[in-house]
Amino acid sequence: MTQSTIVLATDFGIEDTFVGVMKGVISYYAPRSRVIDLTHHIRPQDIVHGSYSLRIAFPYFPKQTIFVCVVDPGVGSERSAIALKASDKLLVLPNNGLCSLILNDYDLQEAVYLSNAKYHLSEVSSTFHGRDIFSPVAAHLASGVPLEKLGSNIEPKDIIRLNQVSNTLREDGAIQSRIIHVDHFGNCITAIQKDSITLEAINWKVRVKNTEISSISKTYSDVSQGELLAYFGSDGFLEIALRNGNASQALGASIGETIQLIPVI
Amino acid sequence: MTQSTIVLATDFGIEDTFVGVMKGVISYYAPRSRVIDLTHHIRPQDIVHGSYSLRIAFPYFPKQTIFVCVVDPGVGSERSAIALKASDKLLVLPNNGLCSLILNDYDLQEAVYLSNAKYHLSEVSSTFHGRDIFSPVAAHLASGVPLEKLGSNIEPKDIIRLNQVSNTLREDGAIQSRIIHVDHFGNCITAIQKDSITLEAINWKVRVKNTEISSISKTYSDVSQGELLAYFGSDGFLEIALRNGNASQALGASIGETIQLIPVI
Amino acid sequence: MTQSTIVLATDFGIEDTFVGVMKGVISYYAPRSRVIDLTHHIRPQDIVHGSYSLRIAFPYFPKQTIFVCVVDPGVGSERSAIALKASDKLLVLPNNGLCSLILNDYDLQEAVYLSNAKYHLSEVSSTFHGRDIFSPVAAHLASGVPLEKLGSNIEPKDIIRLNQVSNTLREDGAIQSRIIHVDHFGNCITAIQKDSITLEAINWKVRVKNTEISSISKTYSDVSQGELLAYFGSDGFLEIALRNGNASQALGASIGETIQLIPVI
Repeated sequence: MTQSTIVLATDFGIEDTFVGVMKGVISYYAPRSRVIDLTHHIRPQDIVHGSYSLRIAFPYFPKQTIFVCVVDPGVGSERSAIALKASDKLLVLPNNGLCSLILNDYDLQEAVYLSNAKYHLSEVSSTFHGRDIFSPVAAHLASGVPLEKLGSNIEPKDIIRLNQVSNTLREDGAIQSRIIHVDHFGNCITAIQKDSITLEAINWKVRVKNTEISSISKTYSDVSQGELLAYFGSDGFLEIALRNGNASQALGASIGETIQLIPVI
Repeated sequence: MTQSTIVLATDFGIEDTFVGVMKGVISYYAPRSRVIDLTHHIRPQDIVHGSYSLRIAFPYFPKQTIFVCVVDPGVGSERSAIALKASDKLLVLPNNGLCSLILNDYDLQEAVYLSNAKYHLSEVSSTFHGRDIFSPVAAHLASGVPLEKLGSNIEPKDIIRLNQVSNTLREDGAIQSRIIHVDHFGNCITAIQKDSITLEAINWKVRVKNTEISSISKTYSDVSQGELLAYFGSDGFLEIALRNGNASQALGASIGETIQLIPVI
Repeated sequence: MTQSTIVLATDFGIEDTFVGVMKGVISYYAPRSRVIDLTHHIRPQDIVHGSYSLRIAFPYFPKQTIFVCVVDPGVGSERSAIALKASDKLLVLPNNGLCSLILNDYDLQEAVYLSNAKYHLSEVSSTFHGRDIFSPVAAHLASGVPLEKLGSNIEPKDIIRLNQVSNTLREDGAIQSRIIHVDHFGNCITAIQKDSITLEAINWKVRVKNTEISSISKTYSDVSQGELLAYFGSDGFLEIALRNGNASQALGASIGETIQLIPVI
């Protein structure tokens, strides 16, 4: 019988054996599943970054894929752990907002607490739920255990959502958002998605810190070398870049910085 | 026919193609095996770190798993290469002490020298036995070659064991050990394992450098912010940590530092 | 039905989700293929380094292996993308010279442009062909699509070859080459391969910057501690090393530096 693909995204880095040990547990319960590392370099404890990483990868994996995301500042506390289904794919993660950007765009189909200890390791540590809970749960899902067996239902309203990744529409028609990721080229990715604004109807200018960018470009070559531009990247999020340069440094803008889209009539 | 999982642990890093090439050799001889990276960031030539990494991962992998560990300061010299079985899992590695911590806790079932060149690549370099010997041997094991075909038996006494990872009991009832790993949070992991000391019978205090910790804690929250604690980590080794801080820096203690457990009557 | 192994080599690093997303696309079209990371740390946009990494790995993978290499400074421009077959293995890459070192040593069997959009993602971005073109093409190959379906034939003369990796024979019998890689030990790897020079017939001395090395050694132990040596590494390329030291630093020589082999009569 075939087993589903399990995708791992964590902030564990790869210097230690954490990720390898998770794969050991998975190989125990789901020996024929495929395991893919999405990234283990989510910024430590940065849930927004984790949510963004999951969101941009999500559409490129087939149905039945199981995403395990462990960015878990609350491990050992009372935060709950959940599994949910959207777009016929599964997510296994702490209930701390990691699924926010996916649930902004894909309808929730089903969700449960990971309350059934039968699908955890027999000894659960207070620090390494990636190994003791999330990996065995994902492996049991991959080997055919249905979602509803993992625990009791969670009400959609009890699934924690990040408000930093929602766009706010102000009274004057402007949209306010934030920088949620700075990639290694210094491009500043915002939470504004292509589908969420009426690009066709009106033009926009972009304001970040003291700088204004007069329009949204299609590609880098719309501006000159050393000039700032705003454009929708290959994942559909609005990015601020500096042609042949580092926008984050040039703007003095980092993660969390406010950004505004202002309609140009 | 199914093929076993092969786990790789090396000090090769991932900047170069060394690990990828090992996987190429494995894919040649065992095309249906699963290959898992435990870590490639063992500190260069640090056999104690390698031994510790293997030990903490070992119980989380299923029987028949084949662990390949290449931390090999003696490559090209006369050091021998071995394969052994413990707990129905296999290890393939240079005979330099890498298996010490596993053999402290699991009974040796079988051990051979990798003396049969039939299971090596036809040309063996003097610098890259990971590719030329350890990978093809592991792949042959995964595809069903029995251990005893790999070469002649090695006497258990000829398997090199590290004395740095053994605890010494002193005359006054104190236990002397060492720091064998400092993780990226600055926690200092010692070679003292939970099962090896009579925790129930007596209380212990911990001495490292000029500092004394008055008892062994259960969890971080037993001490205040900024205070040192000693506790058994999720892998069962005694660790010295600083709540919300870096114990290694605070103590000025690094790998190799002596640590003492002193009974409190 | 079995599916071929796909080997990935890129300059994407592993901090971001680029590589994970490529694997998502591959898992979609070739769910039973094995995917191996050769390296994702090719120096950014360094085609010579990419070509060298592919070349040293190439012989260690079985026939039918599909190598995907994405080092692509020209992405979004008019550079073409190609797939080719040599030694019964396949390569999928931009047409920018990445296959040079392989084609120096292995006969080209077949080559096509990736002109058939049927085997690409339906939306192709201008920046991420690794996801949108190279991954789906490789996955289709792995699942049995024949090379000739991927697009129209490319004439061998239209496959771009790097001239930095070819040796030049000068009139006086000397060979001129370059340093194409400096590994993390500081060893300087040149483009001169063992098979390409008549080692048996004559002796050579090696000149790099102002330094002359009087002969080609067999192994490190041919020279004293702290002395420079030239020798053929485990992959058959001439390297300059410093016994127990860093040759690149000692010579002040980095990638691109000219090196000369001068016959000693």
